[in-house]
Amino acid sequence: MSLKRNKNCGIITKKNNGEKVVVAGWVQGRRDHGGLIFLDLRDRSGIVQVVFDQDKNKSFFEQVEKIRPEYVVAVEGTVVPRSEESVNPKLDTGEIEISAENLEILNASFTPPFYIENDIDTDENLRLRYRYLDLRRPEMLEMLKFRHKVLLETRKYLDGEGFWEIETPMLTRSTPEGARDYLVPSRISPGSFFALPQSPQLFKQLLMVSGVEKYFQVARCFRDEDLRADRQPEFTQIDMELSFLSREDIMSIVERLVKHLFLEVQGLDIDIPFEVLSYREAMERFGSDRPDTRFAMELVDISEIAAESQFKVFQKAIQGGGAVKGINATNCGRYSRKEIDDLTLLVQSWGAGGLGWMVVTEEGFRTPIAKFFTPGQLDLIRDKFAAREGDLLLFIADEYDKTLDILGQLRIHLARREGLLSSTEKKFLWVVDFPLLAYDQEEKRYSSVHHPFTAPLEEDRALLASEPLKVRSQAYDLVYNGVEVAGGSIRIHRKDIQEEIFKLLGLPEDEIEEKFGFLIGAFQYGAPPHGGLAFGLDRLVMLMANRKSIRDVIAFPKTAAGNCLLTGAPAPVSPGQLKELHISSALRDTNKDKK
Amino acid sequence: MSLKRNKNCGIITKKNNGEKVVVAGWVQGRRDHGGLIFLDLRDRSGIVQVVFDQDKNKSFFEQVEKIRPEYVVAVEGTVVPRSEESVNPKLDTGEIEISAENLEILNASFTPPFYIENDIDTDENLRLRYRYLDLRRPEMLEMLKFRHKVLLETRKYLDGEGFWEIETPMLTRSTPEGARDYLVPSRISPGSFFALPQSPQLFKQLLMVSGVEKYFQVARCFRDEDLRADRQPEFTQIDMELSFLSREDIMSIVERLVKHLFLEVQGLDIDIPFEVLSYREAMERFGSDRPDTRFAMELVDISEIAAESQFKVFQKAIQGGGAVKGINATNCGRYSRKEIDDLTLLVQSWGAGGLGWMVVTEEGFRTPIAKFFTPGQLDLIRDKFAAREGDLLLFIADEYDKTLDILGQLRIHLARREGLLSSTEKKFLWVVDFPLLAYDQEEKRYSSVHHPFTAPLEEDRALLASEPLKVRSQAYDLVYNGVEVAGGSIRIHRKDIQEEIFKLLGLPEDEIEEKFGFLIGAFQYGAPPHGGLAFGLDRLVMLMANRKSIRDVIAFPKTAAGNCLLTGAPAPVSPGQLKELHISSALRDTNKDKK
Repeated sequence: MSLKRNKNCGIITKKNNGEKVVVAGWVQGRRDHGGLIFLDLRDRSGIVQVVFDQDKNKSFFEQVEKIRPEYVVAVEGTVVPRSEESVNPKLDTGEIEISAENLEILNASFTPPFYIENDIDTDENLRLRYRYLDLRRPEMLEMLKFRHKVLLETRKYLDGEGFWEIETPMLTRSTPEGARDYLVPSRISPGSFFALPQSPQLFKQLLMVSGVEKYFQVARCFRDEDLRADRQPEFTQIDMELSFLSREDIMSIVERLVKHLFLEVQGLDIDIPFEVLSYREAMERFGSDRPDTRFAMELVDISEIAAESQFKVFQKAIQGGGAVKGINATNCGRYSRKEIDDLTLLVQSWGAGGLGWMVVTEEGFRTPIAKFFTPGQLDLIRDKFAAREGDLLLFIADEYDKTLDILGQLRIHLARREGLLSSTEKKFLWVVDFPLLAYDQEEKRYSSVHHPFTAPLEEDRALLASEPLKVRSQAYDLVYNGVEVAGGSIRIHRKDIQEEIFKLLGLPEDEIEEKFGFLIGAFQYGAPPHGGLAFGLDRLVMLMANRKSIRDVIAFPKTAAGNCLLTGAPAPVSPGQLKELHISSALRDTNKDKK
Repeated sequence: MSLKRNKNCGIITKKNNGEKVVVAGWVQGRRDHGGLIFLDLRDRSGIVQVVFDQDKNKSFFEQVEKIRPEYVVAVEGTVVPRSEESVNPKLDTGEIEISAENLEILNASFTPPFYIENDIDTDENLRLRYRYLDLRRPEMLEMLKFRHKVLLETRKYLDGEGFWEIETPMLTRSTPEGARDYLVPSRISPGSFFALPQSPQLFKQLLMVSGVEKYFQVARCFRDEDLRADRQPEFTQIDMELSFLSREDIMSIVERLVKHLFLEVQGLDIDIPFEVLSYREAMERFGSDRPDTRFAMELVDISEIAAESQFKVFQKAIQGGGAVKGINATNCGRYSRKEIDDLTLLVQSWGAGGLGWMVVTEEGFRTPIAKFFTPGQLDLIRDKFAAREGDLLLFIADEYDKTLDILGQLRIHLARREGLLSSTEKKFLWVVDFPLLAYDQEEKRYSSVHHPFTAPLEEDRALLASEPLKVRSQAYDLVYNGVEVAGGSIRIHRKDIQEEIFKLLGLPEDEIEEKFGFLIGAFQYGAPPHGGLAFGLDRLVMLMANRKSIRDVIAFPKTAAGNCLLTGAPAPVSPGQLKELHISSALRDTNKDKK
């Protein structure tokens, strides 16, 4: 380009009146008023109006007439005030326009397949296929900038706290973190494969053994899982690890990071410290290990009353060692019988046998199960739920944990339906004291609830041998408005304990040696006490920015089927490439048939 | 740990005398003086001396006696002044010690396979195998911190300039940048493969089409090349791209980034702007497109004199269209005949026919070829080289470009030998106006000197059709002390020119469509003029920190053979994993035999 841009479009105001400027950008729109042509010129900063006058711009007015939306142009001109009637108060630049004196058409453009503006209602696949145009929409550009700011402020904050960002390898070894690995065949070592990291877990622990003390990394991670709407095969996490610090120390540093981010990026002041719930308490009160506490509707246990009632369903649950619990759907007494039946179908789809319900009316409870309860029992129930006229009480009677889980889901369902999920409220909380192990009924063995490097609570360690399922871990999850945004733990730093855990998990010696030999080896050379945490960055940014889809905060996301609609990846490669890598496609013959 | 650390070892000085502190770290050394045991305790910040007194520390003195080097301990104690004779002026903490009151052994340690200290002389493979111990050495920890600071300051600076850091995909499509791709088989799309990016080139250009205007990324890149000593299969680059700016604008931003980095990270003030040499000038003067200008020894052309001389070798070179050029190896007249013969062998190993030489002595030239020149010609030569007594003139007579290249190599060789490569001098310069294309004699076709998206110089564009090899590009390389540390170019942003280049490169239509279809497609929707640059971060950090090996500035590097000695990657995987990915190892049968 021969014109030299010296001003961004969106920042020109009446203060610049009389200034000679050169702007450049994309043509948002164009209005032809005979001898006058108006262009709205857009760059990253905003939009400014440029006016071309046939009389003044004779030498290039023909060119102006050729300009269409999304053409790229540079314009030299003078900032002048708009006439009073043409002032546009919606635009920052609405009081001025640029009277053009020179034009350079930098590139032409086809008509885009959708409008380059916010809030378009376009099929997402079309947006992904033309991602370069989709990102051109101001709200998407804004999102890229927002994400940049979140990452920059993360780095500034952690640097200030003494963290060093350290890059760990992408071409590494298969690590067993629950999901499938993406593999990379080695050309130089025939028959061998690298794996892309599911997380930098092992490396960050090794860095603690090295004495780094405070590590972080904005780390790309990979999981070859069956994709869901909000999952991506590659994702970014803010990964941290620290030595010589307690769980509480680490949680406190993370709280200050979150506070810093909201303050610096959004100007919002978040209260810290965050509430801390034990896993048990979270489950009992909210039926979830990632409770959304923007609303109450807590679970209430009526097992004692239920046991004494005449209602067989309730009695049976209690006798079977289960529980009867409920929630108060405040003001939902208005629900029709049909609506309550639909709720019943819903909880049944989650595995419940049925749904008990009572509506609190002026006259008392309206409910098909009133007859099974004495008036005293009903009074007790009303008290326990602090129920008032117009409320709807909903009950689940089932196995203990299942009761919690189903009510937890129902609670969220009702909150969404009743509009209780404020988009401005920010509720952070920690969930701690998770169980260390779960028992896999199918495989008849223990598995780690978090990962096998998680340390047990000191006071529970003696239970490892006798009652492993009772052992709580030093794990902690950070929950934001009901979504887990970060998780971590104090790690095992002693070889003997790590080996005890591996044994409990039923990992054969040779597999331990092969997969973790180097980590256990490192633990023999002075591993310090350490722990860490990882933020799911994509989700955090999505929530901070109040977006619905994780794909909106990733520049070039893949579809739910794991494809890139823009580049066509993944794609077939040449047989020569495969041969060099010492692999062959098991589908070779099938492919041949296609051709 | 039950003791709560509140102080780093290395920052405790006499100002802290009398303070009660808790320190934690690794035991650097241990001296047993009977009833007194001294420990040097090391953490990330440095070393402090702790003294245990059997009388005062009765309850745990037995424990102290068990402590060995690299044990991890926490100590509570009081900072006290050392006795005058035991002050250690070499240590920041040398005037004090900690009188222990409480001890917690956090972990034991085997004896490390090498000393945890700077400047060890240990086989690098052993260091890599125990990388977690190697990194524990203070100079290596310092390097991790240094690299962190370089990246942080890069980000701060670029953010201040309005750049947004944007993450581009790792699982992408094979891009043709000259090297082999690492492939990742897709489980969900059988027979298809992702490729790991050789650079974010295509994505950053697409981001320009999106209107991002100023992009950067600290990007992990992958090249499956045959490894050399200073190459890694994965490496990091500081990747940038900008719109609406000229080559000079971009170079200026990069200069300010470099200045910022040296100032903020090392406190060094680098002069900008940097010198700019055309490719032609760099070759003519220094015989290299990445000249080291810490010393002069520039190439001198004596072709005219040589043509008129009686020396057949020189005459022949000129007649064949070649050149005769030389360098003045200042003060190297002292070299023995044997030493000069060795230089001859050296240039012959680079492909030269021979090496002409003249030593300037009190009496004139001492040289076997004096007789071929008239005294006037010899005077002219002396003048041209500004030769003085004690200097050694060295000549190459060969094809034009070969003459430049060999003298360029010889120049560096001599500078190294003569100790002219100052480790404190920092010489940055730009090389510009590279040829756009080269001609591959073997394959009988043109290839891009940089990459196929590089724009030709505007004034040379007409030559594309007639004399493609004369077309210069808008590429620019940043050279630091003779090493290319960054390279970039103004890109082609118009579809017609991009297609013209692809055709010149002899790329078949269907290959263009398949590999670049989406980029050319994007260019049809209003691509702005744009250009960019990428820094090789590993190399930059290595040079800034005056290290010899790139592996010293990477936390977990691979060997020259592409292996990770720590984790054993790459490694065989289970047949089940391969089956899920729809590939089979071509070595399956061989592997079977092994088992």
